[in-house]
Amino acid sequence: MRSSTRGAVDPFIVMDVMEAARRAEAGGRSIIHMEVGQPGTPAPQAARDALSRAMADGALGYTVALGLPELREGIATLYQDWYDVDLDPGRVVVTAGSSSAFLLAFTALFDAGERVGVTEPGYPSYRQILHALSLDPIGIPTHADARHVPDISSENLDGLIVASPANPTGTMLSREDLGQLIDICHAQGTAFISDEIYHGVHYEARAVSALELTDDVYVINSFSKYFSMTGWRLGWMVVPPDHVRRIERLAQNMFICAPHAAQVAGLGALTARDETESLRKVYAENRRLMLEELPKAGFDQIAPPDGAFYIYADVAALTDDSRAFAAEILEKAGVAVTPGLDFDPIRGHQTMRFSYARGTDDIREGLKRLTAFMESRKK
Amino acid sequence: MRSSTRGAVDPFIVMDVMEAARRAEAGGRSIIHMEVGQPGTPAPQAARDALSRAMADGALGYTVALGLPELREGIATLYQDWYDVDLDPGRVVVTAGSSSAFLLAFTALFDAGERVGVTEPGYPSYRQILHALSLDPIGIPTHADARHVPDISSENLDGLIVASPANPTGTMLSREDLGQLIDICHAQGTAFISDEIYHGVHYEARAVSALELTDDVYVINSFSKYFSMTGWRLGWMVVPPDHVRRIERLAQNMFICAPHAAQVAGLGALTARDETESLRKVYAENRRLMLEELPKAGFDQIAPPDGAFYIYADVAALTDDSRAFAAEILEKAGVAVTPGLDFDPIRGHQTMRFSYARGTDDIREGLKRLTAFMESRKK
Repeated sequence: MRSSTRGAVDPFIVMDVMEAARRAEAGGRSIIHMEVGQPGTPAPQAARDALSRAMADGALGYTVALGLPELREGIATLYQDWYDVDLDPGRVVVTAGSSSAFLLAFTALFDAGERVGVTEPGYPSYRQILHALSLDPIGIPTHADARHVPDISSENLDGLIVASPANPTGTMLSREDLGQLIDICHAQGTAFISDEIYHGVHYEARAVSALELTDDVYVINSFSKYFSMTGWRLGWMVVPPDHVRRIERLAQNMFICAPHAAQVAGLGALTARDETESLRKVYAENRRLMLEELPKAGFDQIAPPDGAFYIYADVAALTDDSRAFAAEILEKAGVAVTPGLDFDPIRGHQTMRFSYARGTDDIREGLKRLTAFMESRKK
Repeated sequence: MRSSTRGAVDPFIVMDVMEAARRAEAGGRSIIHMEVGQPGTPAPQAARDALSRAMADGALGYTVALGLPELREGIATLYQDWYDVDLDPGRVVVTAGSSSAFLLAFTALFDAGERVGVTEPGYPSYRQILHALSLDPIGIPTHADARHVPDISSENLDGLIVASPANPTGTMLSREDLGQLIDICHAQGTAFISDEIYHGVHYEARAVSALELTDDVYVINSFSKYFSMTGWRLGWMVVPPDHVRRIERLAQNMFICAPHAAQVAGLGALTARDETESLRKVYAENRRLMLEELPKAGFDQIAPPDGAFYIYADVAALTDDSRAFAAEILEKAGVAVTPGLDFDPIRGHQTMRFSYARGTDDIREGLKRLTAFMESRKK
C-alpha cells in the first residue's frame, strides 16, 4: 500500500511512555504517572450527573456542528467571569478536544507549504499536525531567561501558535508580552493562535486571554485540564466573527459535531466550580511538594511554573539521552516521566517533564521513588 | 484575519437543513426528520449501562491512541461473526467516528495535490475533507443502470474511496464488482478505501467487506449507523499491518484518542445484538412503507435500496433547484429532506434524499405530510 510523506510524523512520545506504563501495569507493576498531562480525577460529579440524566432522556444524536447552543452560551459566560470579556456565544465553536480545534484552525487559516511558528520547547503535536497538513512548522527556540517569549521579529511567518501557561514549562506570558506578540503578528500579517488550554490552572495571577486584547485571533481552550475531562474529548475555539461560517462549514464536514455525551457533561461541568476550584488547590500543594523535593533528589535545574501542572527540568548534568533516561526511570523507579525530546527536538535530549496532575499521595510516592532511584544511581 | 483557500469548503447541506429544522422546532413547529442519516433511537441499553458503570468506577482519562485493547478485540470478533474473516485486533484503529478515520486515512496515504476519486453521487464530506487537506477530489459520475459502480479505468487516481452500501443510493457493490474495483486499483497503484459505515443495515444479503477480498485496503466503519450511536463519535478503521504504526503516530498527534466514554459505550453495544438486530427490522418496515407510498405521492423515480436507510429520488420532473424544493418541503410540509446537491454537485439539482432512519410512526407521518404537500402543489 502506498503512503504519503506528510503522514510520516514523529510519535507523540508521551503516548508511547503511557503505553509502556500500561504494559508494565498489566504485568503487575505499580507505576506512578508523572508522564501524561491529565488529572487523576474523573469529570466533575455534576458533569457525570448531567450525562446520566441525558442518557435516560434522549437519543444523544448528532448536535449541530458548532455545538449545543446552551453550551456555547455557557462558555461565553466563562469569559465574563474569568476575564471580564463580553463574548458573543455565536463566536464559540465547540470542538472534539483542542485536537480538533487545531485541525480546524490550521486548515481554515493556512494553505499547503505555509509557515507556522511553534515554540521550542512546546506542545509536540502542533509540529506533527502541521506536518500532516502539509504545512511547514518553524521551530522558534525560547529561553527561560526571556521567560520563554518567542522572538519572531526576524521570522517570516504565516501563523504563530503560542500557549500560555505553556506546556512543558508552565510559564505564562505577561499582558505586555502577549500584547507585543500579537502586535508584531498583526503588523506582519501573521495569524495568531492563542492556546489557552491551561487557563484556570494558575498559582498566583490568572493567565491573560488573548481575547482581552483583541478579537482578531483564534483562541483555543478545552475542558480537559481545569475541568478534569481529558478523555471526553471536549474543547472549544473562539474565532473572529467573520470566520464563524468558514469554521462551521469545515466542522460540518471534518467532524460533523463534537461528542454529544461530552457536550452534555461539559454543560454540567460549567456548574461545578466548587469542585474544579478545589482541584486547583490540589495542584498547588503538589507543586509545592515538587519544588521542594525534586531538587533534593537531584533535579535541581527547574523553575517554578506560573500555571499548568508541569515541571520542566534541565537534566544535562545527568544525561544526553532523555529518552533512555525516561525508560530507565520507568524501569527502575516505577515512575513514568516524559523525555524533553517530545517538546524540543534539539535541546530536549537533556530535559525532562514531570507532571504533577495526579493526586497528592501519588506525587509523594513518586517523589520518594525518584529520590531513591537517584540515590541508587550515585553508587 | 487571513484565511486559506483550502478552508473554503462547501457546507454539508444536510447539516444546514438540520439547523433550519432545529430553528423551526424551537419556534414551536412539528418537523419530521427525513434529512439526517441517523436513527431516532438512543445507543443500545447495554451501551448506556456500560458507561453508567464506568462513570461510577473510573476517571475516563485518555486511552491509548489506537483505542481500548478490549474494544479493538471486540471489533475484530465482529469480522469473524459477520464475514468469517480472521482479523488481527492489532490492525483495528478506534477513531472518533468515521470522520476522524477519513482524516487519518487521507493524511496517511496522500500528499498535497494528489488525486482521490469520489463517486457522484456520494457522501459529500469526502470531497470537502479532501479539499481541506489540499487534495484534489476527482468526481466520478455513477449511474443507476450500472448499479453505481464507478468506472475508473481511464482515471489516473492516487486513491479511491467507495461506500457500499452507498449513501445516498443504498446500492451495494457485488462481490465481483468490488473485487474488480480493487484489482484495478492495485494494478494502477491506487489506494483503495472502503467505506463500510452502513454494514449491518441490509435487507437481503449482507454487504461484502473489502477485507474478505484483500488485506491491502483501508476499511472504515462506525458505531453510528447499525449500532445507533451517531452523536457518540465512535468509529474504527482496519489498515494493512505495515500501516498500523504510521496511523498510531498520526492518531496520537491529531486526536490523542477517541472519546473514552464512547469507547466504553461501544464495548457495551457490541453485546447488544438482539437490540441492534431489532432496529434492522424497523428499517425494513420503514423501507417497505417508503417504497409503497413515495411513488403514490409523486416521487416515483426511485430504486429499492440494498442497504443503509435512504431513498434517492430523481425529482427532475418536479424541480431544477433541489435546494429550494427542500426548503419548500420543510416550510410547507414540515418534513426535513436533503437536496441531492449535497451528494452530486451536478445532477443533484434534480435529486432528493429521503432518510427513513427514524421510528416507523415518524415515517408514516412524514409520508402523509409529503403526500398532502404534493397534492396541494398540483393545485
